Amino acid sequence: MRIGLDMMGGDFAPTEAVKGVKLYLDTVASDVHLVLIGDEQQLTPLLADAQLDQSKYSVVHSSQVIGMNEHPTKALKEKPQASISIGFHLLKNEKVDAFISAGNTGAMMVGTYYSIKGIEGVQRPTISTLVPREDGSYGVLLDVGINADCKPENLAQFAILGSLYSQNILNVPNPKVGLLNIGEEEGKGNLLAQATYPLLKENKQINFVGNIEGRDIFSNKADVIVCEGFTGNIILKMAESIHEITHRRGINDEYISKFDSETYGGTPVLGVSKPVIIGHGISQALAFKNMILLAQQMLQSKLLEKITASFSTKEA
Amino acid sequence: MRIGLDMMGGDFAPTEAVKGVKLYLDTVASDVHLVLIGDEQQLTPLLADAQLDQSKYSVVHSSQVIGMNEHPTKALKEKPQASISIGFHLLKNEKVDAFISAGNTGAMMVGTYYSIKGIEGVQRPTISTLVPREDGSYGVLLDVGINADCKPENLAQFAILGSLYSQNILNVPNPKVGLLNIGEEEGKGNLLAQATYPLLKENKQINFVGNIEGRDIFSNKADVIVCEGFTGNIILKMAESIHEITHRRGINDEYISKFDSETYGGTPVLGVSKPVIIGHGISQALAFKNMILLAQQMLQSKLLEKITASFSTKEA
Repeated sequence: MRIGLDMMGGDFAPTEAVKGVKLYLDTVASDVHLVLIGDEQQLTPLLADAQLDQSKYSVVHSSQVIGMNEHPTKALKEKPQASISIGFHLLKNEKVDAFISAGNTGAMMVGTYYSIKGIEGVQRPTISTLVPREDGSYGVLLDVGINADCKPENLAQFAILGSLYSQNILNVPNPKVGLLNIGEEEGKGNLLAQATYPLLKENKQINFVGNIEGRDIFSNKADVIVCEGFTGNIILKMAESIHEITHRRGINDEYISKFDSETYGGTPVLGVSKPVIIGHGISQALAFKNMILLAQQMLQSKLLEKITASFSTKEA
Repeated sequence: MRIGLDMMGGDFAPTEAVKGVKLYLDTVASDVHLVLIGDEQQLTPLLADAQLDQSKYSVVHSSQVIGMNEHPTKALKEKPQASISIGFHLLKNEKVDAFISAGNTGAMMVGTYYSIKGIEGVQRPTISTLVPREDGSYGVLLDVGINADCKPENLAQFAILGSLYSQNILNVPNPKVGLLNIGEEEGKGNLLAQATYPLLKENKQINFVGNIEGRDIFSNKADVIVCEGFTGNIILKMAESIHEITHRRGINDEYISKFDSETYGGTPVLGVSKPVIIGHGISQALAFKNMILLAQQMLQSKLLEKITASFSTKEA
């Protein structure tokens, strides 16, 4: 298994990316080979200092970086030597099996769309977030931002993608799927939610448990919570701000600390045929480590093959 | 000033309603006369125990109650002696100047639509929530649930209603209006947000400051945050659940404690010609007191006259 990591992406690159690589290699036993993409001059001393097992990684030099505020399509076109461009090139040409970056999110999305095939039958790829729960388990909320406007069929597909993610990565046997809504009963909600409810109810591939309200997001009522990307993104960023507020106020709570984006690392783009993981710009060592681990789990569990099978069954 | 209060509405009525009345009369100096609507047999001993100034209130007997789960329209029709039915009757006939209930929300909305005139020019009445900020001030978020699907013009009107509320009730001189969105720049977001942005930008009646992201909800970036009722309701209930979680985990923080619905009491229905305030079903003494205070402030500040003037200017 070869996992490509953009060492130049994010606010604390490459220092925190190197620390994350070290944390991963020190704590996770695996046969993963890491392909570290970045500026050799910057990386060499940092990697030497980190005293890593040299058989576990190789470096691919990249002479350019796409800035966090650059226009994605333009940047990818004009900077073929950027770490993100090289990452997608390697992924496309099967030199790596997965690609991770905490860099420009737009460039990551555009790169994914242009370089990686979609999975047959999936109308729209989606991104998700893990939702920490008090018992230590995690729910999945999706979409969290790339699909601001959705049709009912899109949400129905997110439900399948989220269920497979929950099953294969979070090891939840028969994940309960909830539709995010503003009332408990069928028939409540906006037009989208009203039209989505029957689609989820009919779908035999998922374990639909009904509507989930805002107060239930952090509960165990559902393992997979489905919504369009507008509401999902607001929830995600609001939860992160709650973490920041409590941190600033000196509140030290094991559970609330999990609202930190570091914990969940990054989101996979679900619905495309290869593992692409997009990290938060503020990713530090733990987030990088968790993203590498997630890529490893996605490959080991054969999640994408299972998604492909699930959607081809549906088409048949 | 006569304020009508449903003593039978909510999970802890009438005990907590009586406590709320006492708290209000003990702590707020005003010439308000309270009209307490409820079952006399239940109320008389409670009111006697509370040792209230008898010149400050009168009781109007009500022999029926609309349950929290009853069908609103049906219940209002079949129970003319219910406290909510009597409340709207008194409001319609100018026996009270404002009406407050923590009872069946649907019945409160239906009662409002049927009994109280809308304000000329307002397309859709709206409900809001106060958003506590760390500096002790409050923002206003609207809509929080009665308008699950909105048009851009609706959001533009919520912006005006919210601004007048912020100015007159929260005493914010020139309230900053933000559009809840999933990106900072103009052009970001779902179709609704994209179409709403220029309407807010052009509107000279408000002080528009641009898009507000999920992480900014509790910040001072905007004093009035505008969104459709689906997202607003999810935010409201999620914030309440954060309060419950921290409470359960023994986190004792002055700021986080303000996420409790008790603090803000209830929401006025903005856009109708008389003050109607809808309380949370779990309202206790503090919430009832705060709702009475809010009704008093709405009357004293002549908020509804100002809303009427603002919308008639716009029409002219």
